[in-house]
Amino acid sequence: MNFPVLYLRKGAERRLRAGHLWVYSNEIDTRRSPLTGFEAGVQAELKASNDKSLGTVFVNPNALICGRLISRDGNHGMTPKRLSQRLEAALSLRDRLFDKPFYRWVFGDSDGLSGLVIDRFNDTVVVQISTAGMEQLKDTIVRSVLRLVHPKAIILKNDGKMRKVEGLDVYVEQAHGPQVSLLEVEENGVRFEVPLEGGQKTGWFYDHRMNRQRLQSYAPGKRVLDVFSYVGGWGIQAASAGASQVTCVDSSSSAIDSVHHNARLNGLENVDTLEGDAFEALKALCDEKEKYDVVVLDPPALIPRRRDQKAGEQAYARLNQLGLRLLDRDGILVSASCSMHLSQDKLTDIIRSSGRKIDRFVQLLEQGHQAPDHPVIPGIPETDYIKSCFVRSLTSFF
Amino acid sequence: MNFPVLYLRKGAERRLRAGHLWVYSNEIDTRRSPLTGFEAGVQAELKASNDKSLGTVFVNPNALICGRLISRDGNHGMTPKRLSQRLEAALSLRDRLFDKPFYRWVFGDSDGLSGLVIDRFNDTVVVQISTAGMEQLKDTIVRSVLRLVHPKAIILKNDGKMRKVEGLDVYVEQAHGPQVSLLEVEENGVRFEVPLEGGQKTGWFYDHRMNRQRLQSYAPGKRVLDVFSYVGGWGIQAASAGASQVTCVDSSSSAIDSVHHNARLNGLENVDTLEGDAFEALKALCDEKEKYDVVVLDPPALIPRRRDQKAGEQAYARLNQLGLRLLDRDGILVSASCSMHLSQDKLTDIIRSSGRKIDRFVQLLEQGHQAPDHPVIPGIPETDYIKSCFVRSLTSFF
Repeated sequence: MNFPVLYLRKGAERRLRAGHLWVYSNEIDTRRSPLTGFEAGVQAELKASNDKSLGTVFVNPNALICGRLISRDGNHGMTPKRLSQRLEAALSLRDRLFDKPFYRWVFGDSDGLSGLVIDRFNDTVVVQISTAGMEQLKDTIVRSVLRLVHPKAIILKNDGKMRKVEGLDVYVEQAHGPQVSLLEVEENGVRFEVPLEGGQKTGWFYDHRMNRQRLQSYAPGKRVLDVFSYVGGWGIQAASAGASQVTCVDSSSSAIDSVHHNARLNGLENVDTLEGDAFEALKALCDEKEKYDVVVLDPPALIPRRRDQKAGEQAYARLNQLGLRLLDRDGILVSASCSMHLSQDKLTDIIRSSGRKIDRFVQLLEQGHQAPDHPVIPGIPETDYIKSCFVRSLTSFF
Repeated sequence: MNFPVLYLRKGAERRLRAGHLWVYSNEIDTRRSPLTGFEAGVQAELKASNDKSLGTVFVNPNALICGRLISRDGNHGMTPKRLSQRLEAALSLRDRLFDKPFYRWVFGDSDGLSGLVIDRFNDTVVVQISTAGMEQLKDTIVRSVLRLVHPKAIILKNDGKMRKVEGLDVYVEQAHGPQVSLLEVEENGVRFEVPLEGGQKTGWFYDHRMNRQRLQSYAPGKRVLDVFSYVGGWGIQAASAGASQVTCVDSSSSAIDSVHHNARLNGLENVDTLEGDAFEALKALCDEKEKYDVVVLDPPALIPRRRDQKAGEQAYARLNQLGLRLLDRDGILVSASCSMHLSQDKLTDIIRSSGRKIDRFVQLLEQGHQAPDHPVIPGIPETDYIKSCFVRSLTSFF
């Protein structure tokens, strides 16, 4: 291939050589290779200032991340063949790990497919494209997906926030098969139905699947509170594992409707709901001296951006303290975070200080991470975002 | 209770207030409370320099860690009743989590029982006492264990390195029941027998049980290399989960004998062994161009002390690079560490740099920790020591 060349400034290749795959616009030697000379979505060869080839990138001159490494070989563009090979490599891992075809099939950079996320719900496939480079391969992606897994339906859920940054339209489009409005999910042997329209992200968060599986060990016979429940991922699985009573808290009335629907779907009659702001609801439950055996906290990212660090950490601290307060004498707190900016160590430290403040003896039993269908690339900290702490809290013990 | 008082220097209470339970001898105000005035193993009330009570401690004037917090109430000594309550609290957690009575029942400070470790192998209980304070309660411990679980045998395996520091004799003693020479273990549905005499620590390491369980997902149909195999914990479980071929490497001939014994015990005929130094063996296998689908590295602590940090990290790096080299085109590296001084982040970084050095596309699929029968106390970093990385390594992919 004969690609146009994008030159880095001196030293800017270091992060890439260490394993990262992103190029920032201020790292480009714009004298040698003006970004204005590139159209959004084209492929280019990336070179260090000493002319050594670093590989091939998708270019977007309008985005802060103006280059995304596709290969460490400067001659290897993202051809239909290479795209298909990577989809197959990603598929073979998931097929090996999961009994049934419910998983995140492609997790962007982590599967060598920057800008592409694919979730599989048995014979329904939901594709999300977030970069101009990947958008150009839209038809190829749909064809490859059809060839590899023969789904009944493919949905392009191209309505992510990142698309605007990349100068892309926002749309949801049925790319194949009959119209789908309800996603059917099975996770850890429990069934869910999630409305596609208005659902969050691709509709379901497989990233916590292993942590929800671990919850099943702690649920039997227990009173469980699932905070920020969305459609009931944690709560319904706890009920299905034998919890005596489950309460799901969410601020969205459609999520609450889905919780009830999913409880019925699994023949569960001990799941109730509380619609409202989680912090307010937890405070009210504390005031009413309610107690639970297990409290699950799975908030949205409370530190969405680096500048929210301090306020976000304080929010996590408030939340975890409320959660601990609501536990009975020997209770389990499951404290999750999907904030890339909150490290596992910091979350553990928040739990430590929350426990000390209200004099609980706190044992960290398990530290969970994102499921293996969301691989982390060491060298790309942005790919490592999910964490969960399973904590036992003892009162009047020590 | 009316305990003698141990006074801290000004400010020395900070770490304890934050959650730690250990007092170092240089933190004592020896003018107010000379350590020479305390006998090894006595209980004392611990006070801050402003006379505020911090709780009750076991004292050992001869050890660097001269105080171990037993309670945050200065009137609560370690009475037989309190000891029994804590044994019960620890037991109730394990009973809840595990189907069968094979687990670490007590994990020292993490269960509020500083200086005591108890492993349970069905009706055989192995007790390890490592401090003078706990040694004084030896008979009480044996009586409580008898009352709580009615084991056939109780063994006091009091031969740990820490005992010398505490000025205690080193001995192994049958405290109850008929002589036991072989421990029968069941972990993740697989059986093992381990000679008690000469076995490592209490004879079995339950701390990796969850990580070994995860290995079962990656083993079916695969060629597995288990390095530092000891009696075959990882390798035999991989074979039992359907690995096509398993090779266990260990430098101890008695461990190698146990591998063969345990393979037979589970009716497995595809487990072979290599006796020798792991680094040497891995180099030889590399030279012979051997390839495996799964390589498990579970070395002893390569950073036993803080001053071994640099050499230890280099040893982990050499090891992980050898492991990656031995993997076939699409292979799984399970890289474990039991070094408290090696953080999860550092291990991940070692894998990152090893992968970059030999041009592999490396996906971190799972990050494992110690099992919940080894709780971590946030605030006592020393209690958090086990980590494992499940890594997929792809050749000619990116």
